[in-house]
Amino acid sequence: MNPALHGRSYASASAVPQFNWEDPLGSRNLLTEEELAVSETAERYCQEQLLPRVLQAYRDEHYDPKILREMGELGLLGATINGYGCAGVSTVAGALITRAVERVDSGYRSSMSVQSSLVMGAIHDFGSAEQKEKYLPEMAQGKIIGAFGLTEPNHGSDPGSMEAIAREHPHKNGYYLLKGSKTWITNSPIADVLVVWAKLQATGKIRGFLVDRKTCPPGTLETPAIKNKTGLRASITGMIHLEDCPVPQENMLPEVEGLKGPFTCLNSARYGIALGVMGALEDCVARARAYALERRQFKGNPLAKYQLVQKKLADAATDAAYGTLAAIQVGRLKDQGKATPEMISMVKRQNCDRALHNARVLQEIFGGNAVSDEYGVGRHVANLYVTQTYEGQSDIHTLILGRAITGIQAFV
Amino acid sequence: MNPALHGRSYASASAVPQFNWEDPLGSRNLLTEEELAVSETAERYCQEQLLPRVLQAYRDEHYDPKILREMGELGLLGATINGYGCAGVSTVAGALITRAVERVDSGYRSSMSVQSSLVMGAIHDFGSAEQKEKYLPEMAQGKIIGAFGLTEPNHGSDPGSMEAIAREHPHKNGYYLLKGSKTWITNSPIADVLVVWAKLQATGKIRGFLVDRKTCPPGTLETPAIKNKTGLRASITGMIHLEDCPVPQENMLPEVEGLKGPFTCLNSARYGIALGVMGALEDCVARARAYALERRQFKGNPLAKYQLVQKKLADAATDAAYGTLAAIQVGRLKDQGKATPEMISMVKRQNCDRALHNARVLQEIFGGNAVSDEYGVGRHVANLYVTQTYEGQSDIHTLILGRAITGIQAFV
Amino acid sequence: MNPALHGRSYASASAVPQFNWEDPLGSRNLLTEEELAVSETAERYCQEQLLPRVLQAYRDEHYDPKILREMGELGLLGATINGYGCAGVSTVAGALITRAVERVDSGYRSSMSVQSSLVMGAIHDFGSAEQKEKYLPEMAQGKIIGAFGLTEPNHGSDPGSMEAIAREHPHKNGYYLLKGSKTWITNSPIADVLVVWAKLQATGKIRGFLVDRKTCPPGTLETPAIKNKTGLRASITGMIHLEDCPVPQENMLPEVEGLKGPFTCLNSARYGIALGVMGALEDCVARARAYALERRQFKGNPLAKYQLVQKKLADAATDAAYGTLAAIQVGRLKDQGKATPEMISMVKRQNCDRALHNARVLQEIFGGNAVSDEYGVGRHVANLYVTQTYEGQSDIHTLILGRAITGIQAFV
Amino acid sequence: MNPALHGRSYASASAVPQFNWEDPLGSRNLLTEEELAVSETAERYCQEQLLPRVLQAYRDEHYDPKILREMGELGLLGATINGYGCAGVSTVAGALITRAVERVDSGYRSSMSVQSSLVMGAIHDFGSAEQKEKYLPEMAQGKIIGAFGLTEPNHGSDPGSMEAIAREHPHKNGYYLLKGSKTWITNSPIADVLVVWAKLQATGKIRGFLVDRKTCPPGTLETPAIKNKTGLRASITGMIHLEDCPVPQENMLPEVEGLKGPFTCLNSARYGIALGVMGALEDCVARARAYALERRQFKGNPLAKYQLVQKKLADAATDAAYGTLAAIQVGRLKDQGKATPEMISMVKRQNCDRALHNARVLQEIFGGNAVSDEYGVGRHVANLYVTQTYEGQSDIHTLILGRAITGIQAFV
Repeated sequence: MNPALHGRSYASASAVPQFNWEDPLGSRNLLTEEELAVSETAERYCQEQLLPRVLQAYRDEHYDPKILREMGELGLLGATINGYGCAGVSTVAGALITRAVERVDSGYRSSMSVQSSLVMGAIHDFGSAEQKEKYLPEMAQGKIIGAFGLTEPNHGSDPGSMEAIAREHPHKNGYYLLKGSKTWITNSPIADVLVVWAKLQATGKIRGFLVDRKTCPPGTLETPAIKNKTGLRASITGMIHLEDCPVPQENMLPEVEGLKGPFTCLNSARYGIALGVMGALEDCVARARAYALERRQFKGNPLAKYQLVQKKLADAATDAAYGTLAAIQVGRLKDQGKATPEMISMVKRQNCDRALHNARVLQEIFGGNAVSDEYGVGRHVANLYVTQTYEGQSDIHTLILGRAITGIQAFV
Repeated sequence: MNPALHGRSYASASAVPQFNWEDPLGSRNLLTEEELAVSETAERYCQEQLLPRVLQAYRDEHYDPKILREMGELGLLGATINGYGCAGVSTVAGALITRAVERVDSGYRSSMSVQSSLVMGAIHDFGSAEQKEKYLPEMAQGKIIGAFGLTEPNHGSDPGSMEAIAREHPHKNGYYLLKGSKTWITNSPIADVLVVWAKLQATGKIRGFLVDRKTCPPGTLETPAIKNKTGLRASITGMIHLEDCPVPQENMLPEVEGLKGPFTCLNSARYGIALGVMGALEDCVARARAYALERRQFKGNPLAKYQLVQKKLADAATDAAYGTLAAIQVGRLKDQGKATPEMISMVKRQNCDRALHNARVLQEIFGGNAVSDEYGVGRHVANLYVTQTYEGQSDIHTLILGRAITGIQAFV
Repeated sequence: MNPALHGRSYASASAVPQFNWEDPLGSRNLLTEEELAVSETAERYCQEQLLPRVLQAYRDEHYDPKILREMGELGLLGATINGYGCAGVSTVAGALITRAVERVDSGYRSSMSVQSSLVMGAIHDFGSAEQKEKYLPEMAQGKIIGAFGLTEPNHGSDPGSMEAIAREHPHKNGYYLLKGSKTWITNSPIADVLVVWAKLQATGKIRGFLVDRKTCPPGTLETPAIKNKTGLRASITGMIHLEDCPVPQENMLPEVEGLKGPFTCLNSARYGIALGVMGALEDCVARARAYALERRQFKGNPLAKYQLVQKKLADAATDAAYGTLAAIQVGRLKDQGKATPEMISMVKRQNCDRALHNARVLQEIFGGNAVSDEYGVGRHVANLYVTQTYEGQSDIHTLILGRAITGIQAFV
Repeated sequence: MNPALHGRSYASASAVPQFNWEDPLGSRNLLTEEELAVSETAERYCQEQLLPRVLQAYRDEHYDPKILREMGELGLLGATINGYGCAGVSTVAGALITRAVERVDSGYRSSMSVQSSLVMGAIHDFGSAEQKEKYLPEMAQGKIIGAFGLTEPNHGSDPGSMEAIAREHPHKNGYYLLKGSKTWITNSPIADVLVVWAKLQATGKIRGFLVDRKTCPPGTLETPAIKNKTGLRASITGMIHLEDCPVPQENMLPEVEGLKGPFTCLNSARYGIALGVMGALEDCVARARAYALERRQFKGNPLAKYQLVQKKLADAATDAAYGTLAAIQVGRLKDQGKATPEMISMVKRQNCDRALHNARVLQEIFGGNAVSDEYGVGRHVANLYVTQTYEGQSDIHTLILGRAITGIQAFV
């Protein structure tokens, strides 16, 4: 009989196991030594190096590009890629990194996801050998910063209708001219290389292009920042305006055509979000718990003594534990070649929705004090709203799942 | 490097994996061959033998004790116990059986849970060698039916305040006299042996007694059925009235004292419920999906085409998938001696709550037709309400979790 | 200055007003003397005459037609109609009657709504002088029982697609032959006169017909009861099968054509439901409050002392108070000719949804005891599900409101 | 018969009434001519004068005290007070002003509520004739700005435990020395007169003091602003530090002692919030509706065509309509001396909760675009969170209602 299956003999276990509110369903038990080590490295960096900066950065809407360098030094960028100086860790390990970063701030995680999953991922999965050699090693070190240009102003949830276009250069052989606008592009104002998806005029098919900022003639590439954001203020977001920007043919991603390209990258990034947002939620639980234990009202009782407060904590801890297990499961299936995009839609949607919902409920524990940004919970709430809307707003994933369940599409 | 961790190479998987709405997050992948076989045996029996009877049984509030015999023949009773003619399968395998049964009806599952987890479990964990030999083999075959008497009329959620008492027989040496009432006792009207928890007068400590019906003098044991139930009507529920019922000393469970006894058994049963209710929820998803695909309204569109319907299905399928993974995880930890009662509180509470909530939402898809009992969904809704209230009403588990998270108890 | 508007002088009010949990926002204050008197008459009858019968009737799926006679004697049927022996009270007064009845049971209210709003309303609004004289006085006394045949088996939410047809009798002049099936028809098995909506073959337009049972040749009208319902078991529900049933021309409702006919009647009935279900909800609040005050757990504290219990009561009482005010407001507007169908969709949907939701939450206070049908709360829960689905399932009203708000219809 | 009660004759109304999504249940119908006029004046000012400034003010956390002057010129301050240059309008009219202001921004409304309900209200209800003459006329014109100092850093929800103290001046006859700290005080940094509640050392009873800034010796009164707020950034909030600040005896409010003083004022302000937040919610509905009609995705369909979007709009419009009616009802009862504090708890809690909930759901319609502050919906969401927490956090009002319903207090 399988040694894992020794039936009703657990009572003889010598040490009594303890409930751990930070990992209520023992998800650590599912991780390998390597994954635990990766997670610990990332958590330590984030708590020691990122956490102290985030309050001011968020206030100022400032993102320090040095952060990507620091992450690169620790091997946290493009970590699931084999070779090119990348760590080559498991999908779950990669997501544990996003969780550690998002425990501090979803904006920092967004910036890293773009670098790792969207840009390095696109180049790794669909790039030529030359493209990989040229970009991946320096991106892994955070020396080259990437951005991913898919979303357009008028087609947020429907990239298939994109208007950006690449036409053959009228007189410069081997060149395309790119024209179009992209918006809500994380990292775009500071990016060195931008993966831009555009329709090839000749075929009408969507293709990916590596737009290398330093080679763009003046006026052909503009990447203005979007300011006064209501969330993700610790990351930098902008637009991409391409005005007949010449891009050499060898900068087109050769291995993919159509929406499959961006969707594969998004899938990867979405997966990272699914575990990432659990970090933000867990941080809200930890902050709310600490506050509830310390804050006293009515005869000196800590808030933690009130049933209405305990329910908020119990509900949130449950959703965090469930979401973590689901994300780990999908990561394992991904590495076994058994994950489907719908699975990722499911965990992305559910984990973002539950993280946001519970963060808001936990915020109530702080009462009026949550209005002070120093408690951090308001920042998570504002950030998590954004995670719910990007890389597939929840309603879109609902309809993706509905289609997968019923076989009928209802996008109308 | 760990072979499970091959990083970003999944793209090379040859066959494209398919989303399976009946197991959206691939939980089958976590099961052993043996577990899959156990599950299949149980599912086949339930769909072929139980499903055809349940509609009429529920209408009539009738439970056929033959069912336990049938289950016994297939090895489904006390399945996690090693020896005594039991199957000795893993905790997860045991729960897969409950899921299969509850896919048909929570009442059938309740009856089986009492037999397997509460009564056989109590005897196995805390009984003497003689008690085990005497009862377990025949119980495993369903030839002896058990009931578990803990809950009292005035102390539903607070068994520590029980009033049932066992005092030494005034003139019959080696005998106790049991006195007290228990209520909402599944199987009690048909039980051959009843595990009754009572306070030993001499010590004030709670002890378990095996009350063997055939040895009870007339008038000392009454087990009237409770009729006109609003749920679980396919199982039989009753009271236990003990009026100075003489029980020999050797029928006292020797190995446990205090609430630890009943709580250990409840823990086991609760665990089974956590995966069990996922079966009922999955059946609701399947029924609602089939109805939505077949029923047409407005220009001949199937209901499944409506966004509001797809959302109900997507939400329910997500909760079923998440709850399944969480229950499997806790089962694995249980077999490794790493599960805590709070973990079981968490999955019992969350899975019952979500099963009930989603079953109700799915019921809306049937509109007025759900009023016909032939659609089955109303029966699941009514049953799932009960699962939410027994073996720890959800609010009680909330406070158990709240205490585990904060270290402060808020029951008062 | 308007005397009602005396500004900040309230502090001088002599008597201190008291909060009344049975009418938290003082809706009584909005009622006229006459309305209060009507309400009191209805409430007394319902509590004294209906309440004692409902438990057994619900168990047995039995409806006693004598109830309509009793209501008739008190002037509770067709009460908003002027003349024909009807009371001619305000729309709000009529709804206070439905509230009183539904405080006991939604099934009793359904039976009365069909009689008053759907059948008497149809005849009053669209009938000929002869039809009114012939039916209304006896219906007002409950001596003639009515049913309303609109819903068909395949077109629950989409009556415009109905298949029932009325064609001219091939050889009997001045007669139509009605053919078709209706389902989920309250009162149909006991009805003397059935308003049946069918498409006139000649025009394709929907018309209403008064099918008088005693004049139907054998085999042309069948009204089998639907049994084993999961809710509304204290009312009787059935089908209507018309097999070339001859109906004289003078039994066609002359004053309306198209869906406007049934929809006007439904509007009236829906309005009654909106205030009616508040009665069921208020009864759940009262029952849960009483139980919570009496039931003690943990150190002898009443359940009412627990925050989680108080929240359930507070939420429910709030929704009951809000829903009552909204329904009164729409009733007032109705009498002023200012109500629109969308307003009725809004209060029907919201009040049914909130009544059902809160009834379910209040049921949790009873824990496992709610499984006993004697507590009544489970019956309200089961009934309220049905109110949510009939006369416009909530999702349909959602889309009606969505269309009214956006100008765009989204039914397909 | 009451002319309002003409029964079932509505069908004869000549003009067909139209559904108005901006006032779905016709609440305008309940307002007097005067109230409509007041509302229109306020709405016009707010839309024309306040709306254009709010975006920048919110970004900059800037509040322009000139706004109170403008409001004063229009008679919007202390409007329910009779005399002293105040408008003397009804309670409902006063709340229509708050609704108009909050339609633009909850911060602007907060500032006005403090001036009108808390400070002018306190002076009017509990002040001496001299105090009223001295302050009310200039406050009504916005020339003197008020603040209300009740909340202390450690006693947010439990003002009875306040630590601020007033002791007799050791050598200056007829003077008290005030000592203590207040926090989250709207307007405090710009206030000319601060109502400060403190315990009188001699009696231990809470009393109110008018602290006139210009008479405070240096160092005895500090009112530092709280910056980097996560909501209500268009209003100014601060602390109050009193360090043996001398206050003449004639500045003590003579007519009240104990918590009754501040609670009466809060009651008034809370009432204004209950209708005020409906303005913010209505603005969210209007903005989301406009966006949904204009924004197109998937085959050029406007978002408004999607069922999932229509549901969000329908739910929000329903809650806005219900909340408006409930608030008007309580206002009417207030003017009749029939309102109780629990009624105000009910509408304050429910309306804040529903406004916040629906604003968040409506925000989803904007998808990622809501991250741009120019859409305004994110600002409302952030503001409404604060309204839920101040003047009684929702959980506190839940327990107030629970106590009123059960007679048992559960604050623990």
